Amino acid sequence: MQLNEATARRRFGSVPVVRLATVDALGRPHLVVTTFVVDGDHIYLAVDQKPKTSRELKRVRNIRANPEVAALADHYDDDWRRLWWVRADGSARITTDANLMAGPIELLTARYPQYRSDPPRGPVIAITVTAWSGWAYTEPDRP
Amino acid sequence: MQLNEATARRRFGSVPVVRLATVDALGRPHLVVTTFVVDGDHIYLAVDQKPKTSRELKRVRNIRANPEVAALADHYDDDWRRLWWVRADGSARITTDANLMAGPIELLTARYPQYRSDPPRGPVIAITVTAWSGWAYTEPDRP
Repeated sequence: MQLNEATARRRFGSVPVVRLATVDALGRPHLVVTTFVVDGDHIYLAVDQKPKTSRELKRVRNIRANPEVAALADHYDDDWRRLWWVRADGSARITTDANLMAGPIELLTARYPQYRSDPPRGPVIAITVTAWSGWAYTEPDRP
Repeated sequence: MQLNEATARRRFGSVPVVRLATVDALGRPHLVVTTFVVDGDHIYLAVDQKPKTSRELKRVRNIRANPEVAALADHYDDDWRRLWWVRADGSARITTDANLMAGPIELLTARYPQYRSDPPRGPVIAITVTAWSGWAYTEPDRP
């Protein structure tokens, strides 16, 4: 069964990591797993690795070339009656301004205790979700 | 640390589901979670839903328009020293011929007991992997 938007958004926000798909300038997809926070119809992620080189990460370069992104949350269980997934389609922008990054980084640090000693440095990727879609094998419990 | 190709391929094949990114004719990414089997540098997936309409699934239409795909396996643990991911980048083709689908569907049915009473009908998506890449927080155990 398809999930309604409220259920889809809630389930998306319940998992620790999602997968982010971006597209490069040549039309090739790129895929990473990432921590995130949901705030209404916005999803925020932050680059948390120390840069190895001066080159920007591919996900960041891709978004600068093409802002269209998709993010997927899913749940697996050997009992397939428990499977579900939620996809957020939207448009992303890159934020490197420290003042604008502060709010999302605070939300991420509050959500993940692992960040408390070493918060993400950024840049921050802010996604405006234009469509939440989702599916579950069986009817979800009503909230 | 980066994973070598053999370790990356092995870990990819160890998880029950991966996420497949495709790109539509307008350059927008699409993302699904899927069962799969790995055979050397090939990955096989099959459409397992009964078609709701005569329209092909978006992943199939996308691959017909643009064969470039990426697939991601990842492992999450609250202990971030156990995190890892593997990405397979490659080129996909759609197979609807029953003779060509038989081998992949047999592999999928052998891997997933859940398919035994109701094997995937197809089409089959066959990915030729051109690059395996992967990362783990800590050194993997040597095989």
